[in-house]
Amino acid sequence: MADQGEFCYTISPHNKPRLAMDPGEEVVVETEDAFSGQIRKEGDRRDLQKMPHSNPQSGPIYVRGTKKGDTLAVKIQDIQPLTGQGSTRIVSFWYASKYDTDLAGKFLGHDAVPHGTRVCPISDGKVHFGDFAIPYRPIIGTISTADPMESYLSWLPGPHGGNMDLGQITIGATVYLPVRVDGALLHLGDVHAVQGDGELSGAAVEMPARTQLKIDVIRNKAIEWPRLEDDSTLYAVAATQAGRSLEDAMRMAFMNLILWLETDYSIDRWLAFGLLTLVSQVRIGNFWTVAVGVPKKYLNP
Amino acid sequence: MADQGEFCYTISPHNKPRLAMDPGEEVVVETEDAFSGQIRKEGDRRDLQKMPHSNPQSGPIYVRGTKKGDTLAVKIQDIQPLTGQGSTRIVSFWYASKYDTDLAGKFLGHDAVPHGTRVCPISDGKVHFGDFAIPYRPIIGTISTADPMESYLSWLPGPHGGNMDLGQITIGATVYLPVRVDGALLHLGDVHAVQGDGELSGAAVEMPARTQLKIDVIRNKAIEWPRLEDDSTLYAVAATQAGRSLEDAMRMAFMNLILWLETDYSIDRWLAFGLLTLVSQVRIGNFWTVAVGVPKKYLNP
Amino acid sequence: MADQGEFCYTISPHNKPRLAMDPGEEVVVETEDAFSGQIRKEGDRRDLQKMPHSNPQSGPIYVRGTKKGDTLAVKIQDIQPLTGQGSTRIVSFWYASKYDTDLAGKFLGHDAVPHGTRVCPISDGKVHFGDFAIPYRPIIGTISTADPMESYLSWLPGPHGGNMDLGQITIGATVYLPVRVDGALLHLGDVHAVQGDGELSGAAVEMPARTQLKIDVIRNKAIEWPRLEDDSTLYAVAATQAGRSLEDAMRMAFMNLILWLETDYSIDRWLAFGLLTLVSQVRIGNFWTVAVGVPKKYLNP
Amino acid sequence: MADQGEFCYTISPHNKPRLAMDPGEEVVVETEDAFSGQIRKEGDRRDLQKMPHSNPQSGPIYVRGTKKGDTLAVKIQDIQPLTGQGSTRIVSFWYASKYDTDLAGKFLGHDAVPHGTRVCPISDGKVHFGDFAIPYRPIIGTISTADPMESYLSWLPGPHGGNMDLGQITIGATVYLPVRVDGALLHLGDVHAVQGDGELSGAAVEMPARTQLKIDVIRNKAIEWPRLEDDSTLYAVAATQAGRSLEDAMRMAFMNLILWLETDYSIDRWLAFGLLTLVSQVRIGNFWTVAVGVPKKYLNP
Repeated sequence: MADQGEFCYTISPHNKPRLAMDPGEEVVVETEDAFSGQIRKEGDRRDLQKMPHSNPQSGPIYVRGTKKGDTLAVKIQDIQPLTGQGSTRIVSFWYASKYDTDLAGKFLGHDAVPHGTRVCPISDGKVHFGDFAIPYRPIIGTISTADPMESYLSWLPGPHGGNMDLGQITIGATVYLPVRVDGALLHLGDVHAVQGDGELSGAAVEMPARTQLKIDVIRNKAIEWPRLEDDSTLYAVAATQAGRSLEDAMRMAFMNLILWLETDYSIDRWLAFGLLTLVSQVRIGNFWTVAVGVPKKYLNP
Repeated sequence: MADQGEFCYTISPHNKPRLAMDPGEEVVVETEDAFSGQIRKEGDRRDLQKMPHSNPQSGPIYVRGTKKGDTLAVKIQDIQPLTGQGSTRIVSFWYASKYDTDLAGKFLGHDAVPHGTRVCPISDGKVHFGDFAIPYRPIIGTISTADPMESYLSWLPGPHGGNMDLGQITIGATVYLPVRVDGALLHLGDVHAVQGDGELSGAAVEMPARTQLKIDVIRNKAIEWPRLEDDSTLYAVAATQAGRSLEDAMRMAFMNLILWLETDYSIDRWLAFGLLTLVSQVRIGNFWTVAVGVPKKYLNP
Repeated sequence: MADQGEFCYTISPHNKPRLAMDPGEEVVVETEDAFSGQIRKEGDRRDLQKMPHSNPQSGPIYVRGTKKGDTLAVKIQDIQPLTGQGSTRIVSFWYASKYDTDLAGKFLGHDAVPHGTRVCPISDGKVHFGDFAIPYRPIIGTISTADPMESYLSWLPGPHGGNMDLGQITIGATVYLPVRVDGALLHLGDVHAVQGDGELSGAAVEMPARTQLKIDVIRNKAIEWPRLEDDSTLYAVAATQAGRSLEDAMRMAFMNLILWLETDYSIDRWLAFGLLTLVSQVRIGNFWTVAVGVPKKYLNP
Repeated sequence: MADQGEFCYTISPHNKPRLAMDPGEEVVVETEDAFSGQIRKEGDRRDLQKMPHSNPQSGPIYVRGTKKGDTLAVKIQDIQPLTGQGSTRIVSFWYASKYDTDLAGKFLGHDAVPHGTRVCPISDGKVHFGDFAIPYRPIIGTISTADPMESYLSWLPGPHGGNMDLGQITIGATVYLPVRVDGALLHLGDVHAVQGDGELSGAAVEMPARTQLKIDVIRNKAIEWPRLEDDSTLYAVAATQAGRSLEDAMRMAFMNLILWLETDYSIDRWLAFGLLTLVSQVRIGNFWTVAVGVPKKYLNP
């Protein structure tokens, strides 16, 4: 891939494309880790004065000929660590104590929550977190197309994709994203070597990575929110927003999945509603993002 | 099991025990379906005038010698359909349109949401929902011990267990419930032949069932919320309540799981916090209930 | 009023009536404070070992001849302190740090949040909180009728009323409560000398009180949730529950108010919807309870 | 004010300033109504094809010499209707049925919810909504400064201000906004002739308006979220976001108000915590925005 130069910390139509490519082409993208590379060895600590933002994004990539109303299909062919390791920490203000930057936090201070910073070597298909050897299962934490009007910080999920942190955005999966500006403007970053559902501490094993993607476009097919597909399952994704709780996001994802089944698989919406009641798979990315899946074996029956 | 007589629609210390047994014994419990048996053949419809409540409970079972501060361990040995079939419907006021008993509902009426009532034969290990053959995977939707003060309607989850609708409460699993009154007063019912995460329509394939349980007690071990265990995984459960959102319930379940690992597996809480960040499994029962799991292979490493 | 004997810490149909009266009669009720009288002088501290529950309730009062489907109308004629003082404290596990009994709390301990216990003299129409003299404006924090099936702890709000902590439940107001069991079974307690919206610390200035009520019944008029009325305003009340957020409770209260205007004031529901959009008053009791009001001057125009 | 040219539908650092002024100066700003002027007479309907966005913003105004870390103080001196009328409608996809663009909406269609469009003459200090004459009480619905990185659609509230719809942002009030970019870049619009708490239908009486403001700057005083001040009361504002519920927003506003009292009024935070417990005023703007107030008479006692 062409030289990135400065990374982006927003998903924005104002970000200048770093690369242009044609639909159908493959691309290899190198991404910095979510900590902007500040944690490379034991003893390193996140320095939020130097870099207050997380999730530096590579791109945007301009996909020639795509336009508003298309859907971008990003097949993830491979994800490899760039440095043989990742790192993690406790983003203490977030999950450990929801309010430690709020009432409790500013009142109580951060001392009680340990920083939790660790370097995690990756070898032999395992991620080493202290004495725990956890199977390497990499995901792209943040992947998005741009909106024509809004610019989003790269730690937030939304209709554009963004920071979904879903375990399903892994090797072999295809991510469908709405195209809302000419060229789609694909941004990605925040690769995780492994992550549990919910990303409890606010940071997984974050790693600089080399990601191989095949990028296609589906013409004249507009989607409202991201969708995912792998060998066995279709997923619709939604996220919390102002006035939309996690339950609401779950409802939204169910609704988008039902409409997908109706439109592309000719299953009446209320039959789809009944089917999902019995076979849906709900998966949590971070605390704001939910994916609802249906096994493909039930489709085109 | 002894004769049930009338089923219970609350989990309550005021419910008279139907059976007494000793810890370590096995028991076979027959439960009515969540619709109180109103849907037995195509054409039957739920009659909420005759029976406004759902989830009739068998029991309570008095477990001799148990007392406040103990934990009840209920091993699920088998779950079988009693009538070779189950049934489902759309509980339209709930998920199909969250507010159709509220603003939209009373205003718009129920006509737009179909009733969705279907009888679903169960044979050859499959549940037949129209043309879809879905593997039989039964769960106990509602299982609880009693609180000394509160009486809960049987459609609500809570610290007592209640209507959790978790796919993990299945054959082979052990459900741990807090004992808060003498004899524990185990209630159960609302068995599902199969259910997707979230139970979208508000009703799974509901069936009258015969359930075989082995009931043990762990003395002098108090738990705050239900826990689950199967061959591979430990789960802590929590649910939404007044002032506690689904995100809050998820945090609560993570916290309870961390404390479980600390107390019983000698893993420091912050190490457990980090481990769960990487390997947790979040599972959704109904829209109010969440279980957070950890693979047992990481414990006692 | 007759001798209370033991106070109730639930709102329950199982609570034995302490007094029977006829509709149209007045009654004077003495209530203990929310701390069960444990804080009477500086230096006293809440002892949760001795009494883990809050909000002791007086009653239940059996109102002769009332039955399911009626509405109880409780006019508050007066509220006076019994001891010339009240007291307050920080219920630290709740608002000061939402999770201090959860993740942060059990991890961080309670030391960082001060107890905040103070005795507050009431004199000359002022409540003295340290150097602050705050106008005496008493409310009944918890007032309810019983449900035939559920028993609620007295710190929770719900369709039965319960712990609403609304500033509007004050002298001169009428509280309408659903009658769901014979005799209605009115419970009340948790009187506050003064309280801000939201009851931030979890406790207002709590006081033992003498309350004078006139109790009437409206026959064959069922309401789903409590309603309030004073000289200038009608209010519909709703509260958070499992799966119902504060926004949802606000929607529910708006809906109930609209239906009230339609039924009793012959204002078409959509006209009421539009009117409320322009003149509604939303008031917060505690963090779980909301009242939506409409000025009576717009009614019967 | 200088010619606006095209209105802005985002709050964005990329919006070109329309006017530059010095701190201490007054300015008169004309704003279009939230419907972009599409509803001017009975029979007009909102046309979302022509203009899918709401809340056109005037500005941005560049305030010379202001820089990151300052606070902008905007005193509202007057708000007058430009055309002698306003208009309203039901934004049906939002409150009338929360999900009518989601599950229920796409399924049920919009027919059941009336459009509710009305022109509302303003005369003699009254806003005429059908037969109801409601006192004119204008507010600025949307007022903001720009963030250096994020661009927000103008219907959303946030730390930048945005669409708060608070009844307290009226004539005589001062709005404090964080300065995060050079010149602050003040945007405003969405003036309401009158609005109830919560803005139930999603639209108040929306009017094109002439607003007179006095703009000052407080140097080297950074605030996290907007604040308000009028003759009697200080308010801190917060809003829902991804992962932050309305209860959370309320907690955040309480916290910001407490820190304001500690910093500027020398009231210890826990004393402020206790004081607010007794005298706070919680006010709801739209369903996402909350203001928590304290009477100024309690400050500097």
